[in-house]
Amino acid sequence: MAKPWATFGVDLHLEPSGPGVRRGLTDALREAVRGGRLAPGTRLPSSRSLAADLGIARNTVADTYADLVAEGWLTARQGSGTRVAEHAAAPRAHEHPAPRRREPGRPTHSLVPGVPDLSSFPRVEWLKAARRALAAAPHDVLGYGDPRGRIELRTALAGYLARARGVRADPGRIVVCNGFGGGLKLLAEVLHGRGLRSLSVESYGLDVHWDLVHRTGLSTVPLPHDDAGPRIDALGDADAVLLNPTHQFPLGGALPPERRAAVVEWARRTGGLILEDDYDGEFRYDRQPVGALQDLGPDHVVYLGTASKSLAPGLRLGWMVLPESLVPEVLGRGGTRSVGVLDQLTLAEFITSGAYDRHIRAARLRYRRRRDALVAALAARAPQVRVTGIAAGLHAVLRLPPGTEQAVVQAAAWQGLALTGLDYYRHPDTTTDPFEALVVGYGTPSDHTWPHTLEALCRVMP
Amino acid sequence: MAKPWATFGVDLHLEPSGPGVRRGLTDALREAVRGGRLAPGTRLPSSRSLAADLGIARNTVADTYADLVAEGWLTARQGSGTRVAEHAAAPRAHEHPAPRRREPGRPTHSLVPGVPDLSSFPRVEWLKAARRALAAAPHDVLGYGDPRGRIELRTALAGYLARARGVRADPGRIVVCNGFGGGLKLLAEVLHGRGLRSLSVESYGLDVHWDLVHRTGLSTVPLPHDDAGPRIDALGDADAVLLNPTHQFPLGGALPPERRAAVVEWARRTGGLILEDDYDGEFRYDRQPVGALQDLGPDHVVYLGTASKSLAPGLRLGWMVLPESLVPEVLGRGGTRSVGVLDQLTLAEFITSGAYDRHIRAARLRYRRRRDALVAALAARAPQVRVTGIAAGLHAVLRLPPGTEQAVVQAAAWQGLALTGLDYYRHPDTTTDPFEALVVGYGTPSDHTWPHTLEALCRVMP
Repeated sequence: MAKPWATFGVDLHLEPSGPGVRRGLTDALREAVRGGRLAPGTRLPSSRSLAADLGIARNTVADTYADLVAEGWLTARQGSGTRVAEHAAAPRAHEHPAPRRREPGRPTHSLVPGVPDLSSFPRVEWLKAARRALAAAPHDVLGYGDPRGRIELRTALAGYLARARGVRADPGRIVVCNGFGGGLKLLAEVLHGRGLRSLSVESYGLDVHWDLVHRTGLSTVPLPHDDAGPRIDALGDADAVLLNPTHQFPLGGALPPERRAAVVEWARRTGGLILEDDYDGEFRYDRQPVGALQDLGPDHVVYLGTASKSLAPGLRLGWMVLPESLVPEVLGRGGTRSVGVLDQLTLAEFITSGAYDRHIRAARLRYRRRRDALVAALAARAPQVRVTGIAAGLHAVLRLPPGTEQAVVQAAAWQGLALTGLDYYRHPDTTTDPFEALVVGYGTPSDHTWPHTLEALCRVMP
Repeated sequence: MAKPWATFGVDLHLEPSGPGVRRGLTDALREAVRGGRLAPGTRLPSSRSLAADLGIARNTVADTYADLVAEGWLTARQGSGTRVAEHAAAPRAHEHPAPRRREPGRPTHSLVPGVPDLSSFPRVEWLKAARRALAAAPHDVLGYGDPRGRIELRTALAGYLARARGVRADPGRIVVCNGFGGGLKLLAEVLHGRGLRSLSVESYGLDVHWDLVHRTGLSTVPLPHDDAGPRIDALGDADAVLLNPTHQFPLGGALPPERRAAVVEWARRTGGLILEDDYDGEFRYDRQPVGALQDLGPDHVVYLGTASKSLAPGLRLGWMVLPESLVPEVLGRGGTRSVGVLDQLTLAEFITSGAYDRHIRAARLRYRRRRDALVAALAARAPQVRVTGIAAGLHAVLRLPPGTEQAVVQAAAWQGLALTGLDYYRHPDTTTDPFEALVVGYGTPSDHTWPHTLEALCRVMP
């Protein structure tokens, strides 16, 4: 018996069991998009949460999404989930459009975290650096080259990471990778190749990362956490752990000093490996950034960095600093040599010329001002909402009164503002008590749209 | 009992058994490099053939190579194997260099196939295209974007591939990937995810590709071949096959028309999948290029192309045209979104502006002249050597009198000329009768060094 299904504010009718469930879900979703009931740009629930809502297998939802992405009705974007494609709903001339219900329109503003302000990408400086780098490069840089990446970039990164993030690095242990995700995938393959079965992760994080790990054959096991962060004492005999010690995404905390020491001590004692995801370590506003955890135990920590937040995700530029002992295994996996040499040489030139530092300083000032404005506006207009997490990075966590998270996200959609609730980032297996909050990416808007976006946020606060 | 080991003309003393074999091999090789007995640039045998020589496990050799790459003594380059690093042998001031035997010096010329003439990369035009592309791009291109790659590039490729290679493509079925290797890795993961166990391959090819496939958990099964190419009738109930229908690497033949039809018929009949590696399809000198096999069965063929031979491998730009049914599975693997957007937009602009066609025409003329000069020089000076394979691509196969292949390669090394024998590319499990030949990459030298390189080749011919 088909039942009405009202997740994310849309009623669909489908038969959620039997062999036709995937077909039924696909047809129902396609029809909702085609008919305009799901507006272009609308974010769909994660496959995990929709599967839970419908009581069906997660793979079925994931396959349905993939089918509709392939058909062009949906788009899947790393870091911002699955959405209705922008041009999906235009009804063909010969079709009667389905009767439209009142539904949220395409969002005009977004505070979905995960991307920096792309309008501030230093296009002119980047092109200048590209020209200088290519003019100086011998012909053989255009060949296959070192599997770790260009020596020019690894040398520039070794100096920069030591200076800016306290990382102990030498170019021989740095491997340039296709963003953070490319590095994580390689490391998960190495761990799986060693016979490991699982990777400990934090209880809130990004499902795209967990999925990358799952596809290599490892499972992810969420660490319990308390108000101070992930409980290192619960690691026990885990084999490896993925952490955001400097600025947790999405919760926004920093790992306290005693837990930083404890996790390195755990690694020394057990031989476990720490994967340190330092995605936005340059952006701290109330003090000097805390150095990378890697400095406490370079033989036990893989440091992972990226230009995705400091410059732009589209560059697909990431890097790993590996313990000496891990280098041959990572190179032996293949899958390195994953970034074009022109971008590598350009970033090397960008760093060594000082343009990267200048860009980071300007970005730090921009995001700091935005965070200050966010805190001030909420204090004045929504005093019951508490901004939590350290003054850092490109996102803030807004704790909401119980029972309001979903309503606020939906109200925002009606106002044309794309928002994400904390629940979206919760690991399905975590037993930590949930709380209600928004994860607000104040780095996402352009300078031009930021004031309107902040105003729109204040309007939907409970 | 340590035995002297004289593969590739170097005597090493090592104990090839017991738990110390990896350590012993590593030390012996390191010492040979450090002492200068293995000169910078020297190409090492494949791990497969060295393992066979020494009667030890291939993994032991591969691990040894990886260790020495990590230590900086060796470099591993896709498409050209493992070599002694350029700066590896400089003895430290406080060390007595080991007594040097007479050994080949660093090669001054190379005819190792796998890279185009990098000195002819159109740097100025490429930078101009990059500037135009970035100036025209909206800010959101710098975000994570479509997992298939930028629509601008997929649209440009769909048009180009239809026009230049006869490929039936639409942008929705094109996925931009990290060179051919990135595409092959994704496809092998998809096939493994479907429960397949093996991929049929040609009896000669690149071990880096076989290794990529093996690491996903699939084995590679070489097809027998005869004078006309791989024996399609031997495919039987194979699940999938990787072919170079247009220009086999390294053998240099083209799949005859009746076998092109037969393999598509095989795929239709059995549901098998054909992976068409079209790495150099633009370069045919005696006639119009034969169109891609994909056109005969777009629902059964994955077409894989790359800019590695037409422009430069360092760009890491490749593309797949997928059967409709395969798109969701490939996107569901992750690992897409693997190429920086600036290179994607630049290539799109390069193609649509006509610069790519101009570059291909100039390159075709350059390589055709080189091939003609090679054929003429050998006819005059080494009439017993037969140039085989079609007039296409960047390499030719020089059939040698029996028993001469290894001697010619070694004599060339003494003359400072890096050459590769056909045996290097032989699949270890193939039962096809071997023959002796050189695989000469006449595309590799610069215009400036080509005449000297050709002269050096003629001097070492038997």
